[in-house]
Amino acid sequence: MSQSKKLLVIHGPNLNLLGEREPGVYGTQSYASINRDIQEECRRLGMDCDVFQSNSEGAIVTKFHEARGVYQGIVLNAGAYTHYSIAIRDAISAVKIPTVEVHLSNIHAREEFRHHSVLAAVCLGQISGFGPMSYLLAVRALAAHLEQEG
Amino acid sequence: MSQSKKLLVIHGPNLNLLGEREPGVYGTQSYASINRDIQEECRRLGMDCDVFQSNSEGAIVTKFHEARGVYQGIVLNAGAYTHYSIAIRDAISAVKIPTVEVHLSNIHAREEFRHHSVLAAVCLGQISGFGPMSYLLAVRALAAHLEQEG
Amino acid sequence: MSQSKKLLVIHGPNLNLLGEREPGVYGTQSYASINRDIQEECRRLGMDCDVFQSNSEGAIVTKFHEARGVYQGIVLNAGAYTHYSIAIRDAISAVKIPTVEVHLSNIHAREEFRHHSVLAAVCLGQISGFGPMSYLLAVRALAAHLEQEG
Amino acid sequence: MSQSKKLLVIHGPNLNLLGEREPGVYGTQSYASINRDIQEECRRLGMDCDVFQSNSEGAIVTKFHEARGVYQGIVLNAGAYTHYSIAIRDAISAVKIPTVEVHLSNIHAREEFRHHSVLAAVCLGQISGFGPMSYLLAVRALAAHLEQEG
Amino acid sequence: MSQSKKLLVIHGPNLNLLGEREPGVYGTQSYASINRDIQEECRRLGMDCDVFQSNSEGAIVTKFHEARGVYQGIVLNAGAYTHYSIAIRDAISAVKIPTVEVHLSNIHAREEFRHHSVLAAVCLGQISGFGPMSYLLAVRALAAHLEQEG
Amino acid sequence: MSQSKKLLVIHGPNLNLLGEREPGVYGTQSYASINRDIQEECRRLGMDCDVFQSNSEGAIVTKFHEARGVYQGIVLNAGAYTHYSIAIRDAISAVKIPTVEVHLSNIHAREEFRHHSVLAAVCLGQISGFGPMSYLLAVRALAAHLEQEG
Amino acid sequence: MSQSKKLLVIHGPNLNLLGEREPGVYGTQSYASINRDIQEECRRLGMDCDVFQSNSEGAIVTKFHEARGVYQGIVLNAGAYTHYSIAIRDAISAVKIPTVEVHLSNIHAREEFRHHSVLAAVCLGQISGFGPMSYLLAVRALAAHLEQEG
Amino acid sequence: MSQSKKLLVIHGPNLNLLGEREPGVYGTQSYASINRDIQEECRRLGMDCDVFQSNSEGAIVTKFHEARGVYQGIVLNAGAYTHYSIAIRDAISAVKIPTVEVHLSNIHAREEFRHHSVLAAVCLGQISGFGPMSYLLAVRALAAHLEQEG
Amino acid sequence: MSQSKKLLVIHGPNLNLLGEREPGVYGTQSYASINRDIQEECRRLGMDCDVFQSNSEGAIVTKFHEARGVYQGIVLNAGAYTHYSIAIRDAISAVKIPTVEVHLSNIHAREEFRHHSVLAAVCLGQISGFGPMSYLLAVRALAAHLEQEG
Amino acid sequence: MSQSKKLLVIHGPNLNLLGEREPGVYGTQSYASINRDIQEECRRLGMDCDVFQSNSEGAIVTKFHEARGVYQGIVLNAGAYTHYSIAIRDAISAVKIPTVEVHLSNIHAREEFRHHSVLAAVCLGQISGFGPMSYLLAVRALAAHLEQEG
Amino acid sequence: MSQSKKLLVIHGPNLNLLGEREPGVYGTQSYASINRDIQEECRRLGMDCDVFQSNSEGAIVTKFHEARGVYQGIVLNAGAYTHYSIAIRDAISAVKIPTVEVHLSNIHAREEFRHHSVLAAVCLGQISGFGPMSYLLAVRALAAHLEQEG
Amino acid sequence: MSQSKKLLVIHGPNLNLLGEREPGVYGTQSYASINRDIQEECRRLGMDCDVFQSNSEGAIVTKFHEARGVYQGIVLNAGAYTHYSIAIRDAISAVKIPTVEVHLSNIHAREEFRHHSVLAAVCLGQISGFGPMSYLLAVRALAAHLEQEG
Repeated sequence: MSQSKKLLVIHGPNLNLLGEREPGVYGTQSYASINRDIQEECRRLGMDCDVFQSNSEGAIVTKFHEARGVYQGIVLNAGAYTHYSIAIRDAISAVKIPTVEVHLSNIHAREEFRHHSVLAAVCLGQISGFGPMSYLLAVRALAAHLEQEG
Repeated sequence: MSQSKKLLVIHGPNLNLLGEREPGVYGTQSYASINRDIQEECRRLGMDCDVFQSNSEGAIVTKFHEARGVYQGIVLNAGAYTHYSIAIRDAISAVKIPTVEVHLSNIHAREEFRHHSVLAAVCLGQISGFGPMSYLLAVRALAAHLEQEG
Repeated sequence: MSQSKKLLVIHGPNLNLLGEREPGVYGTQSYASINRDIQEECRRLGMDCDVFQSNSEGAIVTKFHEARGVYQGIVLNAGAYTHYSIAIRDAISAVKIPTVEVHLSNIHAREEFRHHSVLAAVCLGQISGFGPMSYLLAVRALAAHLEQEG
Repeated sequence: MSQSKKLLVIHGPNLNLLGEREPGVYGTQSYASINRDIQEECRRLGMDCDVFQSNSEGAIVTKFHEARGVYQGIVLNAGAYTHYSIAIRDAISAVKIPTVEVHLSNIHAREEFRHHSVLAAVCLGQISGFGPMSYLLAVRALAAHLEQEG
Repeated sequence: MSQSKKLLVIHGPNLNLLGEREPGVYGTQSYASINRDIQEECRRLGMDCDVFQSNSEGAIVTKFHEARGVYQGIVLNAGAYTHYSIAIRDAISAVKIPTVEVHLSNIHAREEFRHHSVLAAVCLGQISGFGPMSYLLAVRALAAHLEQEG
Repeated sequence: MSQSKKLLVIHGPNLNLLGEREPGVYGTQSYASINRDIQEECRRLGMDCDVFQSNSEGAIVTKFHEARGVYQGIVLNAGAYTHYSIAIRDAISAVKIPTVEVHLSNIHAREEFRHHSVLAAVCLGQISGFGPMSYLLAVRALAAHLEQEG
Repeated sequence: MSQSKKLLVIHGPNLNLLGEREPGVYGTQSYASINRDIQEECRRLGMDCDVFQSNSEGAIVTKFHEARGVYQGIVLNAGAYTHYSIAIRDAISAVKIPTVEVHLSNIHAREEFRHHSVLAAVCLGQISGFGPMSYLLAVRALAAHLEQEG
Repeated sequence: MSQSKKLLVIHGPNLNLLGEREPGVYGTQSYASINRDIQEECRRLGMDCDVFQSNSEGAIVTKFHEARGVYQGIVLNAGAYTHYSIAIRDAISAVKIPTVEVHLSNIHAREEFRHHSVLAAVCLGQISGFGPMSYLLAVRALAAHLEQEG
Repeated sequence: MSQSKKLLVIHGPNLNLLGEREPGVYGTQSYASINRDIQEECRRLGMDCDVFQSNSEGAIVTKFHEARGVYQGIVLNAGAYTHYSIAIRDAISAVKIPTVEVHLSNIHAREEFRHHSVLAAVCLGQISGFGPMSYLLAVRALAAHLEQEG
Repeated sequence: MSQSKKLLVIHGPNLNLLGEREPGVYGTQSYASINRDIQEECRRLGMDCDVFQSNSEGAIVTKFHEARGVYQGIVLNAGAYTHYSIAIRDAISAVKIPTVEVHLSNIHAREEFRHHSVLAAVCLGQISGFGPMSYLLAVRALAAHLEQEG
Repeated sequence: MSQSKKLLVIHGPNLNLLGEREPGVYGTQSYASINRDIQEECRRLGMDCDVFQSNSEGAIVTKFHEARGVYQGIVLNAGAYTHYSIAIRDAISAVKIPTVEVHLSNIHAREEFRHHSVLAAVCLGQISGFGPMSYLLAVRALAAHLEQEG
Repeated sequence: MSQSKKLLVIHGPNLNLLGEREPGVYGTQSYASINRDIQEECRRLGMDCDVFQSNSEGAIVTKFHEARGVYQGIVLNAGAYTHYSIAIRDAISAVKIPTVEVHLSNIHAREEFRHHSVLAAVCLGQISGFGPMSYLLAVRALAAHLEQEG
């Protein structure tokens, strides 16, 4: 039973501007509203949820370290760091908390350099292209995964 | 309201062997059982669902053509064709039915040649790595998308 | 004299949707109408003409085999298979019937992966970018070639 | 009606040697004879036609500039410049006269460095591999295109 | 003792034309005659042998599925599919029947794109360059392998 | 009229050491002195100017966010981040303030890995190789751009 | 003091069409008007200025040779030759007159093949993306450089 | 004589988890214990030693700046930043303090992307693969180097 | 009739350690025992056989030279030299004795750098992946080839 | 007997500046003096010799055309055009006059982009690195070649 | 306790010239003197040490074979063979004696082709850039490793 | 005056077979006869000459070492080692005797892998394509070089 599970949502650089930034690419729903939807979905699935945003690669690495013993799953939208932050990749490998990689836009339909994720290989799975719904699907995937693992 | 929507699930080559084939990679749940779960998830979301499997690239292309006017969304696990079938890519572009790309395994954690999908750029989004749950998340993503599009 | 010559036109995957599919790229003339124009052009040049369409790579290979002894020239629009079907390339080499490669759109002005044809090196020549006119020019090129070869 | 249309045929470097140069690759018909055939084909289609040859990249660029307001279509065999002259590519883009790229030999069946054309993406279309017939097909393609555009 | 073992020989696209097609590359022995030699070699080694040919990638995948429980070893000449069919590769991995990859010509002495096999890594071994003898060596290799495995 | 315009100058990692660090590459003028010259040039053009320096990629991203509504133009010397910080690139795209990329040294005359800028494509323009004068030209370019945009 | 200095502005292929050619990319100011602005800016900085345009790579090389002993600085917009003319690169190295590379458009925001300049490494610096203003900034950069060198 | 020399040990991202993180790759000795061994080795060689750890690229750059005038040598394990931080590379070049690059694991025996160090070219030397012993060897190398330089 | 034919078996570097070296990759049969099996197979086919082993590239080249006029066929396992010894490749071309390339392991299922053979293109054929059986198949292939050539 | 043979020496772009241009790379002997030495060497070997220099690729192509029937051998230093002029390569192939490629500097010891010659494959041979002596060796090589061919 | 351990130092091609060869790159200490220092360091650590040098790849492979049962550790400076000798790599894998790769110069700060070692992945670790001190550090690393392994 | 100068000619692998090996590529003049011609040319130029041939890379490296103090110039045809022997390259750099690289065939007109020489950058110059005449030209080039150096 997943009721006492606790999730952490990590938003990477520039994601705090959601709703204000390039709505053609990232949609019009505001950052705050998206977080509310995520937290509501968590509650619906009997889980707690904290949200963290940083533009700093190092701060995201540190947040992963601090997550040990506190969170059972992580939803990660690493933004631009997706494509080059081996430091975040190593943090995911180090803390061993199941992590789902999320993207609002379909990264495979954008510039060549956005097609590759250096994080994907150490995450549980990847969900991209569904706008804010990507986060909700990730929450659901983690809930199912945690239930299954017991 | 999505109740009269009809989805098509397309399984590509070798996926009919699910449960029997390399369980370390693809899991132990049988092909039939996975399809039952997908159809149940559809029903729960008020949608109908048909399932199609083929080992033939051409047959999958043709199925896409036949889907026009019948299905409002497609869940596609193109298996190995994911990595080279521009014919299926062109079929997706041609029929313009919202299609979600699905993978059981995390293709980014496998051999180099499985990291790239030639289909992703013309799909709504991509979900990979969650085993049979990947299909259920795709169904849910399509349901949300169709509701939103009205 | 070319009057008793017989041509085969082979359309590859998705081309049966011509007129309905992405008219911005492929034009608005219907598949049936294009075929009528091709056949009329053949008649005008004193040749017979059959038309074959398939979404299946294997079926196209087989059609090449069956063409031996029946057709003196082939007009081939292999669609997406242009870019990876070494099987069709081998079929062209094997049957040794003069074959002209045709494309409706200018493949060099589209995505990078459409710039290269694995078939071109074993065809008589390549005509691309003139819409349905590409087929008519190919018919004319084959007529001239066959006349010249005697 | 295309009767008052005027075409320009541009031959690039070394093409003045046609008939004398590597007949195994380029055929035995002389340069003068090919030009006569082109002009005859133009007349047959109710068009006028001028011929220009230069070994100089800059002179070809300048000829494109001078073509504005004089010619409605251009048939271009840029010879070796096909593979690297971005200056000619820019000239084609700049003057916006419909241009058809032509090659006598099948460039895809020759050395690797001849497979790629830097001009193709800004031309109407490309015809290669039919010997002098390539020019005649290009004339016909332009005639059809101009008629269609009105 | 291997007497009750049963082998399957799979010939890929265009191989049905053996003896008729490019004899300079593939030799002059006819397809039927090669199959007779293979079956004779099997009998000599106390094994049964069935032969299957298809130009269709999907049909070859399906044949692999059907081979389970029927054949103890497979001799595969995948022809052009050798170089790109990840679907056939996945089928070999899925059914886990020892498979020997065979080529008539020395693929390493031909065009660059024929040097790489996407199948080799999941086959028992590879034999190329000995003409029809390649098949006979493969039969012998499988016989030895099956005897050894017991 | 540009008199009430306000510019932000952002210096990336290690640039605070200017004058002390590798003078053969970066010149001998001190960091403070360069900033004074920039501010003087701004005043001369009737603009205000703030200066920001950080070694932290995240801090530079955040500074871009904070610049919205405060500055009308940004002069950016991202130092080493020029070559890999997609996070800063996304920040530039997100805030939509005209940004000029500046380099003291001629990055094209240095190591291969310094030839490519991941930022250039989303900046107004790029100025490199003129030492501290590069900043002054950038200020002037922004002044002209802002005046023109009105 | 720079008052007796003389600059040469070299415009490469197709630049004579400025104002008429692809205004979306290159702007609407005419070639003559841009040259007037450049000459006025030179006068303002106490320098003389000659303008040269050619579509011919060789003529530009020769102009560099002739510039020795006549001009103290060169502003070069080599147009398409920027991307492949090693001959012009060698001319710049040979004559050793300080040369500033200029581009109207932001070459880094255009096609991949325009991102690389073979000239940049032997120029003083590069200015791109500011339309006709790029030339004026280059004049100013040269003025400052020449004053500094004495 | 090296007795008054002072070293700085910089640990990059995730290294604070040593002993807890992937012991199969990084060993079981704790971070604190490794630092004690390093400091003991320094004392044995008559040198002082400070230890710094940060997950932030910018903070490591800043630490390099602050090291000027304080430390005579630096032992750097940049962790994941080894593979992409040109900012840290520039900091090493800028401060000109002899720096030894250290890795616990043999980076050449791991994933392809860990084989290349962007830092190595500006360090004194590189030591990798000896677990915590790598740090002690680096201390010894620096001691010898400093003694030699006088 | 092949009874008076004489074969040479050449083992390259490290192959003398067979049976002792990495048995997981190369098997447990000893070097001496493998050679006995090869010689027995030769006798069975009415041929003589000599065995040569060297760790030296130059010695293998020299052995090829000495083989002229003595041996009618060569079985070559060049070990690591397979992947880079153009000197051995040239020796094979020079002496023109039919040579079969042999590998114990399936080189296509190992590290990337072992997938390519610089020797294959000048050998009769290649046999890999069957352990010591690979040698026996090569002997048989040579016997058949020599018989056929007469 | 070679006494009535006539050679043509073609110098490409910037070579007219020899002796004045980058003497560290190209030496201090003047262009005129080098030509005198070449002509003297020709006389010594009983041959006549003309010298041609052009900065224009097209002019060099044309000179090759004009050389037919006049010269029996060509010494070509194509300068920068060596690395990209397929037009000159085609001219060499077209006129079929034995041509020796010459370089003053060792092009293999310079920038990467100077290592490759697009002309070498169609020349008789290549001589590089001996300064003006390279020309004299080329003359001698041609003399020997012409004598041998008769 | 390591007192009865025996090490082998292997110097590859050209290293016998140390002290005489390119002192700017490799230092001025003579080959003999370096070996004396190595042996002294071994004695200090209670180990015996033999030294071997060869310019021959094969001889180095053979030396590895002979080292089995005689030496407990190997210090290897393979010189140029570092970059391409898969034969030596295989020897290291085959004999399974802990081997430390050593370089006098910092190979990462030299030509591109020296950055990659084909040996590193099968060695215990790599030490480069410390001149003769690199050998001494390697001895120390091996001593520690052997002690630890017991 | 060059009369007491002594040259060494080094022939690499397989060159001892000259005249017997692939005469279509390497010519029909025998190895002994070529050496006689070289020695005669040396005598004519007042120099002594020794000849050395080896199939062993290591022996060639050693010969370079032994050449110090004995020979003033070296003519090197490294055969296949040209393309990968960094050991020979290092030997050339180490002994600092002027070395001319020689090839009988035009390596640029052969297989792709023969186009690149790893030796060229450290040789005085390169002569290729003139058959045995290549050696004679190299002798002459060295004579001139030695005379010039005094």
